[in-house]
Amino acid sequence: MLSNEEQIRALVETWQAATKAGDVDTVLSLMTDDVVFLVYGRPPMRKAEFAAQSHVPAGRPPPIVDGKSEIQEIQVSGDMAYMWSALQVSVTPPGAGLPMERAGYTLTVFRHVDGKWLLARDANLLSPVQRPSS
Amino acid sequence: MLSNEEQIRALVETWQAATKAGDVDTVLSLMTDDVVFLVYGRPPMRKAEFAAQSHVPAGRPPPIVDGKSEIQEIQVSGDMAYMWSALQVSVTPPGAGLPMERAGYTLTVFRHVDGKWLLARDANLLSPVQRPSS
Repeated sequence: MLSNEEQIRALVETWQAATKAGDVDTVLSLMTDDVVFLVYGRPPMRKAEFAAQSHVPAGRPPPIVDGKSEIQEIQVSGDMAYMWSALQVSVTPPGAGLPMERAGYTLTVFRHVDGKWLLARDANLLSPVQRPSS
Repeated sequence: MLSNEEQIRALVETWQAATKAGDVDTVLSLMTDDVVFLVYGRPPMRKAEFAAQSHVPAGRPPPIVDGKSEIQEIQVSGDMAYMWSALQVSVTPPGAGLPMERAGYTLTVFRHVDGKWLLARDANLLSPVQRPSS
């Protein structure tokens, strides 16, 4: 029997593996229906918009996504938990040579719904990484 | 007897009034000792750095700070709560003509410690507001 913290760590690992694999349905199954994504410089994003953004048209190759999350803290109280993480993400669109790299922090709220933890609210503070040109 | 949500709304109002009044001690009393502020494009900030940043040297006028917070949601579970808000802040440094205006969203986690709610974790997604020049 996994602890609440272990279950949330497993959710984060599944989320990252599914994102890397382009498995949008699995990612969508890890969030509440009323999920809210707060992203710098744009309006809040809900589940339908997340799904539309993640959808790759049939016959087109998906972007290559890679990421590394270093969880800084997870705290649980009843059916609510929060986590903050240092995150690095690189996305290479099909045909592009160089990946777009972003790094920064996230603050995430999880809810325990029908026996499992789901991502419910997420603030994404990632900013572009400037690489020195060689 | 105020509900948990009402107590958290009162904390937010006190925070804003104290910020506007330059009352740093009151603002510091509204956060946990292990508070973490996550801000776009910079490392996490702890309580000591918050205090140092907010300190106005003796004899100097404080900046004029004004803000408007529209709370979108507060949810409570046990001794933990989260809130997200739409926020507008304007800061006019002493001697400056035009205020620096920022707007965006915040995701905040509160903890109930020794009988009162305190701000514990905060993600600040505010970005500069571009005003059309007239």
